[in-house]
Amino acid sequence: MGNIIRVGIVGYGNLGKGVQRAIERNPDMNLQAIFTRRQELIDTYEPRQEDGYAPMISTDEIFLWEEAIDVLILCGGSANDLPLQGPTYARIFNTVDSYDNHDKIPEYLESVHLQASKGGRSCVVCGGWDPGIFSLMRCICDACLPEAKLYPFYGHGVSQGHSNALKRLDGVKNAIQYTVPNLDAMMAVSAGKEPELTKFNMNKRECFVVAEEGVDQESLRQKIIHLPDYFEGYDTTVTFITEKEFKTNHVTMHHGGNMMCSGRTGDGEFQLMELKLTLASNPGFTGSVLVALARAAYRMNDKGWIGAHTMLDIPPILLNSRSRDEIISTML
Amino acid sequence: MGNIIRVGIVGYGNLGKGVQRAIERNPDMNLQAIFTRRQELIDTYEPRQEDGYAPMISTDEIFLWEEAIDVLILCGGSANDLPLQGPTYARIFNTVDSYDNHDKIPEYLESVHLQASKGGRSCVVCGGWDPGIFSLMRCICDACLPEAKLYPFYGHGVSQGHSNALKRLDGVKNAIQYTVPNLDAMMAVSAGKEPELTKFNMNKRECFVVAEEGVDQESLRQKIIHLPDYFEGYDTTVTFITEKEFKTNHVTMHHGGNMMCSGRTGDGEFQLMELKLTLASNPGFTGSVLVALARAAYRMNDKGWIGAHTMLDIPPILLNSRSRDEIISTML
Repeated sequence: MGNIIRVGIVGYGNLGKGVQRAIERNPDMNLQAIFTRRQELIDTYEPRQEDGYAPMISTDEIFLWEEAIDVLILCGGSANDLPLQGPTYARIFNTVDSYDNHDKIPEYLESVHLQASKGGRSCVVCGGWDPGIFSLMRCICDACLPEAKLYPFYGHGVSQGHSNALKRLDGVKNAIQYTVPNLDAMMAVSAGKEPELTKFNMNKRECFVVAEEGVDQESLRQKIIHLPDYFEGYDTTVTFITEKEFKTNHVTMHHGGNMMCSGRTGDGEFQLMELKLTLASNPGFTGSVLVALARAAYRMNDKGWIGAHTMLDIPPILLNSRSRDEIISTML
Repeated sequence: MGNIIRVGIVGYGNLGKGVQRAIERNPDMNLQAIFTRRQELIDTYEPRQEDGYAPMISTDEIFLWEEAIDVLILCGGSANDLPLQGPTYARIFNTVDSYDNHDKIPEYLESVHLQASKGGRSCVVCGGWDPGIFSLMRCICDACLPEAKLYPFYGHGVSQGHSNALKRLDGVKNAIQYTVPNLDAMMAVSAGKEPELTKFNMNKRECFVVAEEGVDQESLRQKIIHLPDYFEGYDTTVTFITEKEFKTNHVTMHHGGNMMCSGRTGDGEFQLMELKLTLASNPGFTGSVLVALARAAYRMNDKGWIGAHTMLDIPPILLNSRSRDEIISTML
């Protein structure tokens, strides 16, 4: 087993809570402290016995914890939190995060790498399942089947971003958005048709909306369907429901997806690789992946592998708490 | 892209041919020579333009090729070829193999490691899809979901070993064995029932047999069903067919499987990870994986990572021919 790895969590939303619970299930990890900017959380948080009574601390004090923490898991958002937190904390701590703004990944990776290199730290960026495990699959499939076609299908599951976009609209009291994979498209891939697909025809968007009283539902529906960046161009359905129905049937954080990769060998034999995730709790699973990555970050630092890494750069064995001998004799 | 990697193949059965064809599809690889012990192959082989007219050479001369070959891909069998070839060639060449005798993997790994270390070579053992990609999945799932339950389902596909066992029986003229996953068991896993399964109830064995004329089919069927190590304990069916039907409908090397892993997070939320392979050609796919591993072996040697490695020890990015920048911006 080796040493106990001392972990800190930054940010206490759904993902932070998922990480906290995942640490419980990893006996080689101890939670040391949770850091937040929200004073009301610091005032009201009750430390849990399961965490060894790890306290809730203001992020203002985080650098005082340098000696007490081996890896910091950053659970903030990609839009507003990580662009600053990632490089800042990478200077002083080994870090793990789930940065997922695909367009800006190279830039973010570089900014974390620069600070981690200066500080002699080992960081893992863009962890989770996509980017993360799905990325791993894309890289491996494209290597094992050169010029593989890569088809990421998402869902059935809840998109927090799209749900929030709905809630921001005038006339919406409550809402949830399910991402649903297009089964016809999946079947075309399975059948070896190698279809040309875009995000617009790979996934459908199903919205369940509680409208404010007196709102014209048909015009709200039109507004939703044509919302740029979120729904425009997609096959979107809007179903109006009551608040009661919402609270009974739509309180869930499940998600999943099917990363399908197809390629050809020899005389054109069709080869299909699929990684399918069916997740009862998206933040629960993502949190658990980040904890495995925290172990890898700790071990990489021990080996002197300084700088920012992605899941693609990490020997998979470093994620697992078991010894190499045990893994090779039982899992290879 | 970097350098062209110069590859040699040892053994020219189905897998060796799969590797040969895979090299064609990898522009950063050149086939230098194919090595065999079979004199009749050396006498009759016609070098192919697609391989740059790489010759067929006796394995007796293999050490003369030290300077001309960067990586040797060993395509022999685990029972009789690799236990000697693996460590022998690892002394002089970077090697890749698909050793798959699960019980003896630690011993084999150690024997290759010893010689590779002495020779300053980098080797990858146990490559392919199981062991190989499925092992990777087991290690990652068990890390991301501690104490994950691992369910390897095989098929629908042809088992060469079981087909050969049938052909060795008296009264059998020709035969093929399909391994078929037990769908009820797969559904129980998907449904979160966390069943206790053994290899005997996860897979069925379907035999298609051309019997010699005059053979008592019922007693042959009984002999097959009770054949120890191969069929005893399994749900085995035997269907007798004609030679013509055999040659029309049963000439295939397709295979596949579904590595299912389930675990729990937080308050017990059920999380399911599945890697499914549907392979029109088993040797075609395995050969293609070995070629990606040859690239990794070459790069590891360049980095000074000497010794024997498994797929679990290799950063996945080393498998892929694309640059890290390209992979990170397009696949992460």
